[in-house]
Amino acid sequence: MPVIAMLLSGCGNMDGSEIQESVSAIIAIDQKDWKIVFTAPDMRQTRTVSHFTGKDIPARNVLQESARIARGRVEPLNEDLLSSIDAIVIPGGLGAATTLCDFATMGSSCKAHPAVENFLKNAHRKGIPIAAMCIAPALIARVFPGASVTIGTDPDTAAKIQAMGCNHVDCSAEQVHVDHVNKIVTTPAFMTASGPAQVFQGALNMIEALEELIPS
Amino acid sequence: MPVIAMLLSGCGNMDGSEIQESVSAIIAIDQKDWKIVFTAPDMRQTRTVSHFTGKDIPARNVLQESARIARGRVEPLNEDLLSSIDAIVIPGGLGAATTLCDFATMGSSCKAHPAVENFLKNAHRKGIPIAAMCIAPALIARVFPGASVTIGTDPDTAAKIQAMGCNHVDCSAEQVHVDHVNKIVTTPAFMTASGPAQVFQGALNMIEALEELIPS
Repeated sequence: MPVIAMLLSGCGNMDGSEIQESVSAIIAIDQKDWKIVFTAPDMRQTRTVSHFTGKDIPARNVLQESARIARGRVEPLNEDLLSSIDAIVIPGGLGAATTLCDFATMGSSCKAHPAVENFLKNAHRKGIPIAAMCIAPALIARVFPGASVTIGTDPDTAAKIQAMGCNHVDCSAEQVHVDHVNKIVTTPAFMTASGPAQVFQGALNMIEALEELIPS
Repeated sequence: MPVIAMLLSGCGNMDGSEIQESVSAIIAIDQKDWKIVFTAPDMRQTRTVSHFTGKDIPARNVLQESARIARGRVEPLNEDLLSSIDAIVIPGGLGAATTLCDFATMGSSCKAHPAVENFLKNAHRKGIPIAAMCIAPALIARVFPGASVTIGTDPDTAAKIQAMGCNHVDCSAEQVHVDHVNKIVTTPAFMTASGPAQVFQGALNMIEALEELIPS
């Protein structure tokens, strides 16, 4: 039974992991009868936002907020996880572009959070496939130059992906793009989706594609 | 196209709306191409809990936190909504039993929050069907004596439902119980589910059952 590490960045589309994308992936993984281990860095969120007013509020902790999606069962991000997982899934939400990396403010000159970068690079070296939704492929592009990923249809955002030495691929929200060389699956989710049902369909296809990349 | 009011109580299973149940219902509704209007009372949460430590933290606002599940689009609970909606869906999570009513601490002598009680009673008078998941049927039992609802398989919890003058019905997480007289659909969700895939299947069946109760 494959074990999937879901890398979260908080709880909410404006400052953490996008909730509907996260749960779409959770359902898709559970429908396969795979196990999920939730993980998130134990650090302050770069930004914390009232989702009602859109205004900044006092900073919350990434791990603590991620625990809401995980129903309490979340581990601080650590390299030891790599010995027991078969794949990594990274939902979107602005936390992926403000906390896991700073793409939201720095664009193509962004940096990944060092612990996140090491975790993903070491996973990659071990042949562990990675799936990323919505804006999270910007993190993938930063960590894995040469990868081909989805990011939606906005030309400016796509140009930033290209500027990081990666290939941007147009793709509908219900479909996925597979970079077989780098073992990376990406899907645009709410970057292009008309609603949650499309995001869920994309998540189902993402998990199907991930299954083909997991060594049997 | 039916419009569904989703009544939220925050964001997280320990102090608000259960996230995976809420999103399961959101996906099921969106797959029907129905519209969702999110609503929540504008008040302090009775309890706010770190989902990582399980300990109390400073109180958050129900409406503000519910906005995380709603991706920013949530309306303060108000009676005017009743003129434009065709059904109500109430996900579980402890917020339904600590904020929408105080069943978690008061059991069968619990009270519903007055604005929530009026909203549900007036909906009922207008013939608007109501669906409730997990622990939320305890709120239904308080507001609608005589109703028959699911609450899981715990005998103590079931006894409290009976003590409120309602009938408790055993039901698997993937199935629903329909009280045709009162136009109420309930499903146990995480009260009995083995995982998110079962919760999602229950949500799909809940929305199917709700469709039959909405006047065409």
